[in-house]
Amino acid sequence: MQAQLIALDWGTTSLRAYKLGPGGQVLERRSLASGIMHLPTEARMINGVHCSNGFELAFDAACGDWLDTQPHLPVIACGMVGSAQGWSETAYRDSPADVTTLGQALHVVRSLRGSDVHIVPGVMQRDGVANVMRGEETQVLGVLQSLTADDVLIGLPGSHSKWVEVSRGCITHFDTFMTGELFAVLRDHSILGRTQKTADTFQAAAFDRGVQVTLSADGKMGLLSTLFSTRALGLAGELSPEEQPDYLSGLLIGHELSGLRARNNTQHRDIVLVGNNALCSRYQRALQSCGFPHVTLAREAAERGLWQLAVAAGLVQPLLEA
Amino acid sequence: MQAQLIALDWGTTSLRAYKLGPGGQVLERRSLASGIMHLPTEARMINGVHCSNGFELAFDAACGDWLDTQPHLPVIACGMVGSAQGWSETAYRDSPADVTTLGQALHVVRSLRGSDVHIVPGVMQRDGVANVMRGEETQVLGVLQSLTADDVLIGLPGSHSKWVEVSRGCITHFDTFMTGELFAVLRDHSILGRTQKTADTFQAAAFDRGVQVTLSADGKMGLLSTLFSTRALGLAGELSPEEQPDYLSGLLIGHELSGLRARNNTQHRDIVLVGNNALCSRYQRALQSCGFPHVTLAREAAERGLWQLAVAAGLVQPLLEA
Repeated sequence: MQAQLIALDWGTTSLRAYKLGPGGQVLERRSLASGIMHLPTEARMINGVHCSNGFELAFDAACGDWLDTQPHLPVIACGMVGSAQGWSETAYRDSPADVTTLGQALHVVRSLRGSDVHIVPGVMQRDGVANVMRGEETQVLGVLQSLTADDVLIGLPGSHSKWVEVSRGCITHFDTFMTGELFAVLRDHSILGRTQKTADTFQAAAFDRGVQVTLSADGKMGLLSTLFSTRALGLAGELSPEEQPDYLSGLLIGHELSGLRARNNTQHRDIVLVGNNALCSRYQRALQSCGFPHVTLAREAAERGLWQLAVAAGLVQPLLEA
Repeated sequence: MQAQLIALDWGTTSLRAYKLGPGGQVLERRSLASGIMHLPTEARMINGVHCSNGFELAFDAACGDWLDTQPHLPVIACGMVGSAQGWSETAYRDSPADVTTLGQALHVVRSLRGSDVHIVPGVMQRDGVANVMRGEETQVLGVLQSLTADDVLIGLPGSHSKWVEVSRGCITHFDTFMTGELFAVLRDHSILGRTQKTADTFQAAAFDRGVQVTLSADGKMGLLSTLFSTRALGLAGELSPEEQPDYLSGLLIGHELSGLRARNNTQHRDIVLVGNNALCSRYQRALQSCGFPHVTLAREAAERGLWQLAVAAGLVQPLLEA
């Protein structure tokens, strides 16, 4: 089947490349470690030119052979590749944003091999305290493709978890929680890590206990206060070294969800989670403890979103329904 | 004037030694870097014995000459020296605790030079989620000596800030906030540190802005959410690299005080702060922004508390009032 589009989900730590056919169906997919902070460094010839630019090298490795076969395939990319540290800085679009406004704001960088790479802008929210995202907006658009509800809350757990409120196809509000990164720095660099041991299996009871603490009176005092209970419960003999990491994980995710609930309209929306399975399972478990209803999981969000944006930009033609 | 007591405030990073005279007046004070994580390592002779024990070496360096002059001076010590990583583990006393219960629970370790060192137990709180302190209980008792109010809230800002509720001389409740340590790990190990520069002077407006965010609707979503605003405001051009550290400091301290306020009885108490001047100034500023009244600063809290405990333990005689 003839390819229609090359779609790149190009983040900080990884680069995922998709060859998409009619209607956005995935013909081939690749995953490379060449995130923008881990670019190739070994120079080589590209299109007759000696090249040492890491973005060019990664791009060529990801889809050079696809372009050799079909040189005029359009290329679209989302994620940190458009950041100030990326290939070519792509200005944020202000929220609210939808597939049309974002698809019409693609930023073009001409690659050494002659192909134009169309970079999706991130979204900046200026009301209240500032917020930004790059890449998640594309995943959100990919999720929307298969939804029927008008109002939905989309959670993208990770180092910097995003929770995106969508109304009638439009991103109206989003929040960022530094949950994953905070977990990692506390484990690796704080006193809490010193008494922890990694367990072989998920410590469900410890995780649930952490979530429950955030729902208790102690939880109302906030994360800075409950964090120390990881250590104190250890000293009190109530939490083993192997239980402490999942207890801490439960605390952090519980506080994230409490924060989410502080926005009063979140409990009545359908919730869709996008992310890796293990992490989404934790969130599902915590969402259930916190009384959030209607949680579903989305798949292939980035590649679907990139297709939608390419359609909106006129790079590809949508499938005509019979 | 004849000394009555050697008092040691022996924490993780420092060791402060006091020679106290009648009534607990300070005759001499010393500060050594020999906290329990930074003990001397060079072995030498103590009392005719070749010694390589870091605690013995630090103890000898801190007050060996005082004991040479007055070999029978009693010695009392508080802080992490009584922890599992300390000289001799001293079991926590459960809260509530006061000068009598703590003074009667001193743990004795016989030093190589023959002096008994009386170690003050820390306090463990078992109601709600567990909590512990070591050293702060002594500072609290030292503060109480000069207070007239029955109910007081004592704040000890630091790596692990403690807020201790005292009623009629008794420690009834306390909370720990990992504010200082979190600030350090976020600056040194998270993405937030990458865009920060250290400023030459205190960035008051940025600090106040951070505090204000915690009081706003955004602040209700909690620390995990507001943290990211440090980066987002930078990307939005609203916060310079030099302003970001003090903004982050304001965020963290603001969330600590919001947590404190979530305990409903804190706003009607007198507040006393104990700690280094620069840090207490930040807290005073934030407390004012958050509407806490009646904030005063305490001095010489540890040495006063150690004296009070030595009196309660019968190690020294109180001054008889005329």
